[in-house]
Amino acid sequence: MAEPTASGTPGVPASLTTSKRGSAQRFAPGSPRVLVAGATGFAGALAAHLLWRHPRFELAGITGRSDVGSRLDDLYPRYRVPLRVQELDLDALDGFDAAVVAYPHAAAAPTVGALRDHGARIVDLSADFRLSALHTYEHWYGPHPRPELLDQAVYGLTELHREQIARAAIVANPGCYPTAAVLALAPLARAGLLADVVIDAKQGVSGAGRTASLDTTHLSYTGENIIPYKVAAHRHTPEIEEQLTQLAGRGPGRPVQFQAHLVPLDQGEMASCYVTPTRPISSEELASLFANAYEHEPFVEVVDAPPGVREVRETNFCRLFAAADSHTGKLLVFSAIDNLWKGTSSQAVQNLNIMFGFPETEGLL
Amino acid sequence: MAEPTASGTPGVPASLTTSKRGSAQRFAPGSPRVLVAGATGFAGALAAHLLWRHPRFELAGITGRSDVGSRLDDLYPRYRVPLRVQELDLDALDGFDAAVVAYPHAAAAPTVGALRDHGARIVDLSADFRLSALHTYEHWYGPHPRPELLDQAVYGLTELHREQIARAAIVANPGCYPTAAVLALAPLARAGLLADVVIDAKQGVSGAGRTASLDTTHLSYTGENIIPYKVAAHRHTPEIEEQLTQLAGRGPGRPVQFQAHLVPLDQGEMASCYVTPTRPISSEELASLFANAYEHEPFVEVVDAPPGVREVRETNFCRLFAAADSHTGKLLVFSAIDNLWKGTSSQAVQNLNIMFGFPETEGLL
Amino acid sequence: MAEPTASGTPGVPASLTTSKRGSAQRFAPGSPRVLVAGATGFAGALAAHLLWRHPRFELAGITGRSDVGSRLDDLYPRYRVPLRVQELDLDALDGFDAAVVAYPHAAAAPTVGALRDHGARIVDLSADFRLSALHTYEHWYGPHPRPELLDQAVYGLTELHREQIARAAIVANPGCYPTAAVLALAPLARAGLLADVVIDAKQGVSGAGRTASLDTTHLSYTGENIIPYKVAAHRHTPEIEEQLTQLAGRGPGRPVQFQAHLVPLDQGEMASCYVTPTRPISSEELASLFANAYEHEPFVEVVDAPPGVREVRETNFCRLFAAADSHTGKLLVFSAIDNLWKGTSSQAVQNLNIMFGFPETEGLL
Amino acid sequence: MAEPTASGTPGVPASLTTSKRGSAQRFAPGSPRVLVAGATGFAGALAAHLLWRHPRFELAGITGRSDVGSRLDDLYPRYRVPLRVQELDLDALDGFDAAVVAYPHAAAAPTVGALRDHGARIVDLSADFRLSALHTYEHWYGPHPRPELLDQAVYGLTELHREQIARAAIVANPGCYPTAAVLALAPLARAGLLADVVIDAKQGVSGAGRTASLDTTHLSYTGENIIPYKVAAHRHTPEIEEQLTQLAGRGPGRPVQFQAHLVPLDQGEMASCYVTPTRPISSEELASLFANAYEHEPFVEVVDAPPGVREVRETNFCRLFAAADSHTGKLLVFSAIDNLWKGTSSQAVQNLNIMFGFPETEGLL
Repeated sequence: MAEPTASGTPGVPASLTTSKRGSAQRFAPGSPRVLVAGATGFAGALAAHLLWRHPRFELAGITGRSDVGSRLDDLYPRYRVPLRVQELDLDALDGFDAAVVAYPHAAAAPTVGALRDHGARIVDLSADFRLSALHTYEHWYGPHPRPELLDQAVYGLTELHREQIARAAIVANPGCYPTAAVLALAPLARAGLLADVVIDAKQGVSGAGRTASLDTTHLSYTGENIIPYKVAAHRHTPEIEEQLTQLAGRGPGRPVQFQAHLVPLDQGEMASCYVTPTRPISSEELASLFANAYEHEPFVEVVDAPPGVREVRETNFCRLFAAADSHTGKLLVFSAIDNLWKGTSSQAVQNLNIMFGFPETEGLL
Repeated sequence: MAEPTASGTPGVPASLTTSKRGSAQRFAPGSPRVLVAGATGFAGALAAHLLWRHPRFELAGITGRSDVGSRLDDLYPRYRVPLRVQELDLDALDGFDAAVVAYPHAAAAPTVGALRDHGARIVDLSADFRLSALHTYEHWYGPHPRPELLDQAVYGLTELHREQIARAAIVANPGCYPTAAVLALAPLARAGLLADVVIDAKQGVSGAGRTASLDTTHLSYTGENIIPYKVAAHRHTPEIEEQLTQLAGRGPGRPVQFQAHLVPLDQGEMASCYVTPTRPISSEELASLFANAYEHEPFVEVVDAPPGVREVRETNFCRLFAAADSHTGKLLVFSAIDNLWKGTSSQAVQNLNIMFGFPETEGLL
Repeated sequence: MAEPTASGTPGVPASLTTSKRGSAQRFAPGSPRVLVAGATGFAGALAAHLLWRHPRFELAGITGRSDVGSRLDDLYPRYRVPLRVQELDLDALDGFDAAVVAYPHAAAAPTVGALRDHGARIVDLSADFRLSALHTYEHWYGPHPRPELLDQAVYGLTELHREQIARAAIVANPGCYPTAAVLALAPLARAGLLADVVIDAKQGVSGAGRTASLDTTHLSYTGENIIPYKVAAHRHTPEIEEQLTQLAGRGPGRPVQFQAHLVPLDQGEMASCYVTPTRPISSEELASLFANAYEHEPFVEVVDAPPGVREVRETNFCRLFAAADSHTGKLLVFSAIDNLWKGTSSQAVQNLNIMFGFPETEGLL
Repeated sequence: MAEPTASGTPGVPASLTTSKRGSAQRFAPGSPRVLVAGATGFAGALAAHLLWRHPRFELAGITGRSDVGSRLDDLYPRYRVPLRVQELDLDALDGFDAAVVAYPHAAAAPTVGALRDHGARIVDLSADFRLSALHTYEHWYGPHPRPELLDQAVYGLTELHREQIARAAIVANPGCYPTAAVLALAPLARAGLLADVVIDAKQGVSGAGRTASLDTTHLSYTGENIIPYKVAAHRHTPEIEEQLTQLAGRGPGRPVQFQAHLVPLDQGEMASCYVTPTRPISSEELASLFANAYEHEPFVEVVDAPPGVREVRETNFCRLFAAADSHTGKLLVFSAIDNLWKGTSSQAVQNLNIMFGFPETEGLL
């Protein structure tokens, strides 16, 4: 049999004597052709997996900066994608309708630009196009490789920017922490209730990525441990503040206190939000604010008990629980997501669905 | 809105202010109606989940001996089944074409019998119908509640008994250990190569079930631990021996040494098999034995490197790696499955697919 | 050989063919005789272990409400205490100089009272004597069994109340969360800097105790999970507020927001504290506040990087890291302890050392 | 204050504003001065920790090939050793009475040789001096750097070679797997009962060492996983065979089948041994064989129920459980150790105690 091709006719995989991995893609003829650039990292690999099994998209190619020539289903056996990792050739980017770019910040922008020059619509998983203000980006990340593209970019928190995403050339997929935190705070921000905000976030080690390191991924170090990191300096802070400011419809109020912690699990993220409201809020008012905000959202669930992150593991769902503390007068909102799914790759597919006019839940339930 | 019904019109879930959980079942009209009895345990809940999202079966009811009246998606949020747990009424068992019975041994047989009396075809997850010899059952489990039903039962290791399963009234779903072990040893048993067999199995705590106990499920006890259990007395031993004997086509040879261990994970099972062959076997011969045995099996993968159980987590796949040790002359076979999926509930669905003439992989890929 | 006796002559242990477990206690002749009541739970068992190996105390008896007659080193093999669990006989409490009472609240007070009647000095691990105001206790815990004893009790956060502890008849050992939180906030409280306080705490499952339960200890539920619990209602809140108020030397300011989370580890606790100060504080001032506060404390370490709880696992140390966030103007303090050690049992021994005039670190380094 | 010196006068540690870590060593004047070479790895760091708190040895220096200049208590906070890592200077090896060499094989021998030239007695943690036959070493490890030293080396499984260890110039500390396996099989080997042996071993990720790698230490890969490794080719096999052959007092019988597995914990190792005996053995005979073999051993416990590795975590104990399987006629022996303690570093200290005439348990209970 032939090697697996971009169209998904699988060959005999190198590492299997017999193979059940190369099941052909299900996509309908004429489906948009999607490239995943940076498919060997956790985020890109999951995006490739979700697109491979998606009924409306053709996973038309996967590239990586490492493991070129390897089959993705050898690198990620659970993601049954029988394609081989190719090197990205910036001169051969024709024929892709869309791309998911899973590169680190600064490395992403040039690739996004090259893909735009060839007419593809992009969901970029990096931070390069998340901040509308160039000076804010440069303060946190350094010089921007392609600042002229910022105008084409829309912030990809689906529930907030659905309409612009539908028409966007570049969708800047949110960071996982902003996804959890902004969904938790949006109903309060819109109502102008945020006087003071503390966000204490906890995440599993998959957030540290595939590159092994003693401090962030070694089981003998991260196991049986709880570690605060990037104290008072996390790059997701400005992203959260910009979104909350837009929602409040006025200039920055009190800066947001955001703090991340590493806890001993693989996938899962909890954002615990502590809000001092601008005025007293009753439990009833709080409940209706959240119910109204997310009533029609397919992937946001407002629950009436504190959610555990296991409840949303390997799903595109965000579970929210809001409570008014009569003792302190503060509002508490707990937001549970899977950092690799709703926090990254499945939200990218949710955005692609919208960009190409497919049902938003297609391939995600 | 109305309460969720057996046909899957979901209501407003008790525990959600807004709900995305009650997506209607996808089954085609006229699909077989299936009951899951014992749906509140790990195995039954997963079976209900797999049937709920299955395109060819209607999950027509779920019953439990505990949590009656609770919604399954409150007990198991990741299994998005919006049905309420009902009490099993043995006098109201009409209208089910099939049932998955997830009860402990001895408790299962009477329910299986009652369902048979109403004409349903059953996949029983207990040990009650796994052993063909009554005396063997009674030696390991005590008196059999419905011995007269044994003739109607077929052992449900799909890859070995596909034809009989297709016609069976009762399918005795294998234990998780026999599933992993017999798939690992079948090619050698058929070739009459098993002179002596040692099986060292390791499993996560989900194998101990939902009932919390200090010794078998408490994270402070099972975490950072490795524990051998049921030493020289595991009830899965006779099940493995009976299957291997059938495959070898002759009376019991040397008894099988089977030993289970508890290791600190949730889902996953590895059976490490050490075989003294009846004659020297080359790596080439070994490879072709396994390649030929499983070439056309949709869910058994023969790989050329030791598999980790993560590779098959939450799938119906079994990954096998076989090696001939030139130093000892022994044959080593490593078999990785998810104890709750291929080891229990997804194999039950694989069997139901066959029993009702659907494609074997339907709803499982 | 004889059965193990309270004086530590070990016998042949029931569960060992040969034993190295019954090493005689090291205590000097005439050492205070200590009883551990409730030695079968996590906290009592660790207290017994620490006293057994302590050079200045005689572990003179262990009692339990379960497992009577079992050897503690069978229940807790790592704690090599060869004594048998006895039933507590309230009429035979003579001959104990001290006792550690490890009972749930309400159950503890009567036992503490009975031991007081026999002249023993007590470290009580329950909440029964932690709150000075009876009405506060009754608001959070219900009726107090022995309110008249409250006057004899001293709050046992060693670093804050060393002098009173030395003379105390009853030491109310702090809760694990108050231990971590109050040590983190004390330098700021004393300086009158606490305008608003949010405490987000994370703890391993050992905090849920030895009794197995699906929601709080089952590895299949707590593994790969992060769960907020007791939202806006944790009983440790008033304890923290009372201590901070005493330190500030004035009536309650803004109520404290305290929130607990369960994360997938065994032992370890992190209290992340977010403080809005009454006036701007520089990093230098903050550093010197903490350096001065704990310079001479043997068990409190002020570190200059965020600590992981692994760094203090199975020790009596508390590691503190304080930072001033120039972006928000808030002060961040991270406090890492082992919830079973400094959070409970080793702090009890630290207090016993002080009560009996021994070096504070005796038996704890 | 001055920098910490080899004699343990600690200075103000770089990473602490206040320090409790630099407690002076407890050793008596005139104690042997010990060097730990390779103190930055898991094994060397633990050896340094155990020697630092040892009452009879002076930890006179620690060297490393990485992290030179770092304080060991910054690299390993729980090991409260305030010394700085120095570069090993082969020309300045005078004044050490002993050394623990914690280098990889081949790298160790030259350092061991240099230390010998300066008169130090060495416990080498590598494989360089474990195998008496040079050709066996070279078959498994390649050319030996200092073959002429092999005669000076004694195999350091304390319980088997106590007398020779007492006089040895070089003690080759056993591998962790041989430690667990040979202690489990020694009583049977001595009695000439080993006809056929299968050893299935499981270990936590600390066995893979401090160097982070995706496949062996990344929590996102090793978590929720069970992985067989080095199939039919583990270097510990010849070590086990040589020891069993010596015990049996005759030339190699049937080769030993040894297989290692990686399971999701940090420290802990279980060797499950399956023995076909040369003649039928009763449970009584088996029990007395083990009781007699280890009756007087301070660190080997023969227990009457399957041990979990948690029972021996962070101790020098080995727990053995032996059973005769009446069904198969095989003998089962389960051996639980902490791979970093009895499997490596605490056994090294146990050997140093013997080499210098101290009580064998000194500093280890």
